[in-house]
Amino acid sequence: MQPGQEMYDFAGKLFPIGRSLTGEGVRDSLNMIREQIPELAIKSVPSGTRVFDWTIPQEWEIREGYIEDEAGNRIADYHKNNLHVMGYSTAVDKYVSLEELLQYIKVEESQPEVIPYVTSYYAPRFAFCMSKNERDALKPGTYHMFIDSRHFDGVLNYGELLLPGRSDKEVLLSTYICHPSMANNELSGPVLVTWLVKWLKSLDRRLSYRIVIVPETIGSVTYLSRNLEQMKQKTIAGFVLTCVGDERAYSYLESRKGNTLADRVMQNVLGFAHPDYITYSYLERGSDERQYNAPGVDLPVCDFCRSKYGEYPEYHTSADDMTLITPQGLEDSLNVMKQVIMALEYNRFYRVTCLCEPQLGKRGLYPTESRKGIYHEVKKITNLIAYADGTEDLIQISSRIGVPVEELIPIVDKLCEAGLFEILDDNKSNTPQ
Amino acid sequence: MQPGQEMYDFAGKLFPIGRSLTGEGVRDSLNMIREQIPELAIKSVPSGTRVFDWTIPQEWEIREGYIEDEAGNRIADYHKNNLHVMGYSTAVDKYVSLEELLQYIKVEESQPEVIPYVTSYYAPRFAFCMSKNERDALKPGTYHMFIDSRHFDGVLNYGELLLPGRSDKEVLLSTYICHPSMANNELSGPVLVTWLVKWLKSLDRRLSYRIVIVPETIGSVTYLSRNLEQMKQKTIAGFVLTCVGDERAYSYLESRKGNTLADRVMQNVLGFAHPDYITYSYLERGSDERQYNAPGVDLPVCDFCRSKYGEYPEYHTSADDMTLITPQGLEDSLNVMKQVIMALEYNRFYRVTCLCEPQLGKRGLYPTESRKGIYHEVKKITNLIAYADGTEDLIQISSRIGVPVEELIPIVDKLCEAGLFEILDDNKSNTPQ
Amino acid sequence: MQPGQEMYDFAGKLFPIGRSLTGEGVRDSLNMIREQIPELAIKSVPSGTRVFDWTIPQEWEIREGYIEDEAGNRIADYHKNNLHVMGYSTAVDKYVSLEELLQYIKVEESQPEVIPYVTSYYAPRFAFCMSKNERDALKPGTYHMFIDSRHFDGVLNYGELLLPGRSDKEVLLSTYICHPSMANNELSGPVLVTWLVKWLKSLDRRLSYRIVIVPETIGSVTYLSRNLEQMKQKTIAGFVLTCVGDERAYSYLESRKGNTLADRVMQNVLGFAHPDYITYSYLERGSDERQYNAPGVDLPVCDFCRSKYGEYPEYHTSADDMTLITPQGLEDSLNVMKQVIMALEYNRFYRVTCLCEPQLGKRGLYPTESRKGIYHEVKKITNLIAYADGTEDLIQISSRIGVPVEELIPIVDKLCEAGLFEILDDNKSNTPQ
Repeated sequence: MQPGQEMYDFAGKLFPIGRSLTGEGVRDSLNMIREQIPELAIKSVPSGTRVFDWTIPQEWEIREGYIEDEAGNRIADYHKNNLHVMGYSTAVDKYVSLEELLQYIKVEESQPEVIPYVTSYYAPRFAFCMSKNERDALKPGTYHMFIDSRHFDGVLNYGELLLPGRSDKEVLLSTYICHPSMANNELSGPVLVTWLVKWLKSLDRRLSYRIVIVPETIGSVTYLSRNLEQMKQKTIAGFVLTCVGDERAYSYLESRKGNTLADRVMQNVLGFAHPDYITYSYLERGSDERQYNAPGVDLPVCDFCRSKYGEYPEYHTSADDMTLITPQGLEDSLNVMKQVIMALEYNRFYRVTCLCEPQLGKRGLYPTESRKGIYHEVKKITNLIAYADGTEDLIQISSRIGVPVEELIPIVDKLCEAGLFEILDDNKSNTPQ
Repeated sequence: MQPGQEMYDFAGKLFPIGRSLTGEGVRDSLNMIREQIPELAIKSVPSGTRVFDWTIPQEWEIREGYIEDEAGNRIADYHKNNLHVMGYSTAVDKYVSLEELLQYIKVEESQPEVIPYVTSYYAPRFAFCMSKNERDALKPGTYHMFIDSRHFDGVLNYGELLLPGRSDKEVLLSTYICHPSMANNELSGPVLVTWLVKWLKSLDRRLSYRIVIVPETIGSVTYLSRNLEQMKQKTIAGFVLTCVGDERAYSYLESRKGNTLADRVMQNVLGFAHPDYITYSYLERGSDERQYNAPGVDLPVCDFCRSKYGEYPEYHTSADDMTLITPQGLEDSLNVMKQVIMALEYNRFYRVTCLCEPQLGKRGLYPTESRKGIYHEVKKITNLIAYADGTEDLIQISSRIGVPVEELIPIVDKLCEAGLFEILDDNKSNTPQ
Repeated sequence: MQPGQEMYDFAGKLFPIGRSLTGEGVRDSLNMIREQIPELAIKSVPSGTRVFDWTIPQEWEIREGYIEDEAGNRIADYHKNNLHVMGYSTAVDKYVSLEELLQYIKVEESQPEVIPYVTSYYAPRFAFCMSKNERDALKPGTYHMFIDSRHFDGVLNYGELLLPGRSDKEVLLSTYICHPSMANNELSGPVLVTWLVKWLKSLDRRLSYRIVIVPETIGSVTYLSRNLEQMKQKTIAGFVLTCVGDERAYSYLESRKGNTLADRVMQNVLGFAHPDYITYSYLERGSDERQYNAPGVDLPVCDFCRSKYGEYPEYHTSADDMTLITPQGLEDSLNVMKQVIMALEYNRFYRVTCLCEPQLGKRGLYPTESRKGIYHEVKKITNLIAYADGTEDLIQISSRIGVPVEELIPIVDKLCEAGLFEILDDNKSNTPQ
């Protein structure tokens, strides 16, 4: 089976779970991911714990939630679609008129057929979500609003995995797991990370990799509050992977500084492989990159997306379902991230070991018969050598000479073997630009 | 009465005075300004004083000046329009033929109806100025050229005012007073400065303000020769205010370095308030910014204009009269400069005091119900915080996040009150870029 | 006679000589150049000498070379056109069928009428070159392939000339001499250098000049292996002069760093004199700039060309003959390079000696009568002074204020004489950007 299909099928298994910031849904999802990558550690942090400016919220448990009309018909039933109950809703058991009921119903007025995704994590209230059409069809009468939920001191969970390489320089791969049944803006990220880890485990890694699967915002704040110093010392590039399952676009959202190694490698790889990719400014951010790039945190982290959150009509609605993402979409995203990682693995400061051009002919790297046009054919090699002065890393040279890193890798291998290239002190490659 | 109308009326009172580099006209004008702002000091520097590469010229006094034809008709009478006698003209009392007379008549050939403004400050000669039409209508005959003027050792005068703030960092506001009856290219500047001072006096000033009202070129050279060291130590931004009374354009002329704080605040304020403003390169300079920016002087000074000197047809002619400037034009210029000053007053290096994003919800700065589109609504706050890492000043952040400083000021106040923002050492804001 | 005609005639004399990397052809050519500039030194380096990663090849001598058909007709006769025998061909004396012959014939398929220029310097083989038309007309039969050539230990020759100036800072002028009968891509370069030297000898030189005439690639590698340290210490700018004889274009190929003094002066001079000039990236290089700019060599060297090598259809074919270059083309190139050299001679860091603007009027540099438009007329002077703060060199100021250096030179002379300009420590002008 193609990886894309496996990824898609796994997303399908995760889809029905009712996730929130905390609780069983997150734990179930993390456990299912651990079945794929057993090395994943699942961590717990108690409710009430202070994490920087925030506090870990209580767990939320919901068993049932619906509205019942006089005839006993259930409307907005949580068990039919977990978007029907506003996330983190308090409990209710009350008979009300239509007029009163309407105050507790959330719709997306501009999209009459979808159930919107709404939460109220930091103020206690309840509500039901439904399509505008469904709401507008409600007739006067008495309705029973019922939500059986509770909030209690529990834990916040997240998943973590460190894959060591020969160097302790780290690449961060971060994604989130806290949305209920949504496909692109939720499951595509954890699924991509899972398959990347399977591939990374088989790679002869120069770099180390830190994989973080957290509830959005509070999860990354929590993770940073426990790991910031280490991450600041080691992280050379990081990526928030979100909305990576559809086929409509390739997108990249800049880090706050805009010129970190993470930015450069993403621009380089997408620039060659998908030159019509969309660049979003950091001003258009909205996921965990907000925490990783915050002042004082200052990690070099950007986002990789297909259709970016907030930019596609199905975003944060029931229409972001399994029909929106595809096996091909997931697999193409996997391939982009593999290229990104290979570019980072080979991203060194190379320096040519002789003065003037080396004589490539005697090493079989240059045609021995010189005629019009011949110089052009070996440009890839000669241009790589011409800029290998130890001042620009391989990604910079790739961008400068217009040759994808993946085409340069075999040449780099040959030139290193021939003794024509040396690798400069690795510390330089830590400079995040 | 609206400030614009008051400003216009005051310009009207100054209009008839016959000003030159030195003399009664300048003194009368400065005295009238001192009636508006009693703190203004009027300084005197004796003729012959060496100021850098220049020497203070003699005073020029003119009592009468005209041409009389055989029938006793007076033409080009100084008392009708003080542009009729070339500025700084020597005395003459001579009967001449039309042919000879024509050698002493200056017209603007391309604008047949206006009297041009001509001076000869640094070579002794005399001439009359009139419209091309008037000159062309002169008939053969004998003419009496008469100018009752004298040059004598006196003083050069200028006005100066220092308004102290909590910091001794200074903002320079400079304008000139040496042209006879011209409105936009003369009176609009001193009038704007006068009303700015009235407003500044009531402001709780962080910064100090240095107000300089001088005859153009020789006056700013003189002023700098006496105040350069202090100004170099203290000046963070300066503005030459000239041609600020009409309604046709907003213009900004770059400082020599082009990226000083003066440039940045002007670009920022005009960019938001009047995005169609015109930028002139320093190569197109022509007023006192030439002295403030000269090599070795190196003050961060740019020009603010409406229709810039040299760029509008009435420039340096009798058509630059009270119909060219308007109450609205003057008041709008006043408002721009107030915004410039407020932006400078708040231009600090702010740093957010917590790691990761602060939890704005618990402080009432973020909606507690999260749904599609909500993040966009609070972008102004979150983007301000995201860049408040102490490396960019408020003006830079304003430009970066696309929000005018005046909209950021109340947010800055709130965040400072909430303890979420601290202000970094003020020394940094001295860096003029 | 015009210099262009003299240059053209000299090129015509050099044209028939059969040059290669080494051997009599190069020696004869260098000797003819020495007749024009007797100071030229002709150096020899033995075959087998190691030069960086390369080895000096053996000399190649060819006395005859042709194909003879059964009727005794000679085809591809070296004595008719020295392109007919592939450069550096081994000897052969063999009767073959047409079928076998065709394996040893090189044509340019896309240009049926020209003989291509082909060499095999670093693998021993032989071949004949002819037009596609000529080859296609060959009839079946027996052919006699005959080349009387030999390879033997000899020397590689090059020409060198150092013209000292008051400063030991050097300008490098490099061209190559190793192609057989081709006009633009061979002789135009040495001829231009020869006439530049004649002019330089009569110039009161501030700078020193290093003239290098070498076989391409191996020659510049050899030259650098013997002179690198000196050149790194002294060279402020260098130019490879090649393909400078036609009239179709002005071209400039960037140095590797792209912003050296060599780049800046070339951009400046061509930008004013021939604003439609073509800029080629260093990625499109192909001559000795490859060695001068190599990592570790790092000399500030760019190319000046008319129609650049590889970019015109006659390149590396028999069509690159004396009809391609013209007296006018050569002379215009000479004039560009004279301007480049004058710009370098005057390229200092000037600083104005007074604070504020100097009073130009009293020195006769400014009109004493001031009227509308007058300031514009003296802009060339005032703008030069405004930027003469010792931080930008004359070429930078020229580009900034939009006035060619050759127009600034007389003003600089006047300002220096008037004591208004001082020249800052020459060490600064060594900084190659």
